[in-house]
Amino acid sequence: MGSPQGRIPELRKDSVTNRWVIFSPARAKRPSDFKSKSPTTTQTQQQQDCPFCLGHEHQCAPEIFRVPPSSGPHWKIRVIENLYPALSRTLADPSAQYPILNPNPNPNPNPNPNPGSGVKVLGGFGFHDVVIETPVHSVQLSDLSPQEVGEVLLAYKKRIEQLSTHDSIKFVQVFKNHGASAGASMSHSHSQIIALPVVPANVSARLDSMNGFFHETGKCSICEVGVEDLLIDESTHFFAIVPFAATFPFEIWIIPRHHSSHFHELDGAKAVDLGGLLKLMLRKISLQLNNPPFNFMIHTSPLRVTNSELPYTHWFLQIIPQLTVVAGFEIGTGCHINPVFPEDAAKVLREVQNSE
Amino acid sequence: MGSPQGRIPELRKDSVTNRWVIFSPARAKRPSDFKSKSPTTTQTQQQQDCPFCLGHEHQCAPEIFRVPPSSGPHWKIRVIENLYPALSRTLADPSAQYPILNPNPNPNPNPNPNPGSGVKVLGGFGFHDVVIETPVHSVQLSDLSPQEVGEVLLAYKKRIEQLSTHDSIKFVQVFKNHGASAGASMSHSHSQIIALPVVPANVSARLDSMNGFFHETGKCSICEVGVEDLLIDESTHFFAIVPFAATFPFEIWIIPRHHSSHFHELDGAKAVDLGGLLKLMLRKISLQLNNPPFNFMIHTSPLRVTNSELPYTHWFLQIIPQLTVVAGFEIGTGCHINPVFPEDAAKVLREVQNSE
Repeated sequence: MGSPQGRIPELRKDSVTNRWVIFSPARAKRPSDFKSKSPTTTQTQQQQDCPFCLGHEHQCAPEIFRVPPSSGPHWKIRVIENLYPALSRTLADPSAQYPILNPNPNPNPNPNPNPGSGVKVLGGFGFHDVVIETPVHSVQLSDLSPQEVGEVLLAYKKRIEQLSTHDSIKFVQVFKNHGASAGASMSHSHSQIIALPVVPANVSARLDSMNGFFHETGKCSICEVGVEDLLIDESTHFFAIVPFAATFPFEIWIIPRHHSSHFHELDGAKAVDLGGLLKLMLRKISLQLNNPPFNFMIHTSPLRVTNSELPYTHWFLQIIPQLTVVAGFEIGTGCHINPVFPEDAAKVLREVQNSE
Repeated sequence: MGSPQGRIPELRKDSVTNRWVIFSPARAKRPSDFKSKSPTTTQTQQQQDCPFCLGHEHQCAPEIFRVPPSSGPHWKIRVIENLYPALSRTLADPSAQYPILNPNPNPNPNPNPNPGSGVKVLGGFGFHDVVIETPVHSVQLSDLSPQEVGEVLLAYKKRIEQLSTHDSIKFVQVFKNHGASAGASMSHSHSQIIALPVVPANVSARLDSMNGFFHETGKCSICEVGVEDLLIDESTHFFAIVPFAATFPFEIWIIPRHHSSHFHELDGAKAVDLGGLLKLMLRKISLQLNNPPFNFMIHTSPLRVTNSELPYTHWFLQIIPQLTVVAGFEIGTGCHINPVFPEDAAKVLREVQNSE
């Protein structure tokens, strides 16, 4: 079996993540033949037992806020605590965080709100929230209007601003899991926000890589991202591409045109503009790839960055349709094998007709 | 629902991978209740159409060697080329590797066998081989005797030594995918070897982290790994633990007792010893966790390390049973949520009775 494009394999290194990706067309179907084998089934009616549905609010963990703020029973969006949080918001005292140098817990923890390189254990302080994107069980995020998707994005922003008032919180990850095999335990459309007392490894690696690019070139690597063959579509304030060294087939990045280090700098007009482009991208992958499970992640900067970091940090939103299995090679090396060249994926996604 | 252990969540940082892991018992079943929901089905007879079975050798890509070497039709192990390789072994000339500084391929590639930080694209030169661990379709790796598992390990060693003669090859990843959801496209027991012209990100990050630990403490972080509560079992030359900051529930590391930078330093006696301990660990996860899909990876050092790197590089074998879904939070941050504390996982695995 030859390559459908007659192409040879290629290794590409991403200047944002600093990771090599293997593009291996010999293992691929034609790019336009990629479909999910396990499409996400859409519920067509309200479920009796779904706590995220309108009228079932009492089954949920406490609400943080709703949109519109004084909407009473006619809410459009609810931000609530996760009933099974990964981290505990009741461990708020940073002195609960203690450094130890070996695996045996120290009986006299030494308060250390700014963990250094020697710290191996921290109390699991943090926040884990859920954003219910709609009161209606059968509605998915991509069914909402650009204005309504924008309201979801502004709910993320508002919650990040609240979380940033906690000095111990260093980074906030906003993400959405769609479909059970992408990690969604509830089918009702929702996204999640986890606020961490540490800057996680992928974020540090991204900032280091972007810092290196900035020192070599004097430019922000996201501002300099090549478009041309990689562009899918664009709006007034954003553009959507398949990145040059996409880790996964049909991966999409939505990037603000103007240099901006933090997602929560988003204003109302940009939120609606981004809402429209995000909706379009989700519709395109659903139509082209058979409503695949997907994840999206907002890659923003740590909360308390220095002025010297601002020139090279630039947030973006990453969408990953789940079409391939991550196995031993990828887990071991961190190097992924992508069967679809980004230029081909971008061409396919550019040409999908959105029938809506 | 409270924590089954009454424990609070905890963040732990691994000194080998330099990654934070969130331990979140509130999301867990009791550790002893963890089972795979999609156990790997074992074929009980030879399949008509399996190219890895005895007598079907002509259906495979070319053989590299067999064990024993002159065994003719009565082979025990075959190392063959992958029919759908991720990388191409026919692009052997390093001058096919070219650096470019932007996403548009350079029409006049500049030969550069030692890619620097500016290199973004390389021709996809490399090797992708398959190790058929047994001629019999119904036999799994853990069904083999310690001696026979040792022969599989020595086949890895022999192939790595062959691959290391290529100056362009910088790193060799040995891995096994067991079960379709762990990435195995063939049910006949096999493992894979991919030889890369670059040192991948996870390997660089591991060496950087171990180098940092060495400079702080003067010691190798693997030699210093805590055992006590984390030990599952041990043999003459190896010990098996659940690592202190295990990324996945019931993750296992098998570690050589004596400092050794490269897996392919393994000799015949140690191979049989490791074969017995690897077999035991695979039996334990199969018995305890309902024959889960799993991956194992050999984390060795790059092929051409300097003498100064040798004091802190120490190879180990990592086994990951697939029991949880990797979703948006993990993909975004690189920080995993593990519902089972390593001490609890180690206790459960220590107590599994191997009935064989």
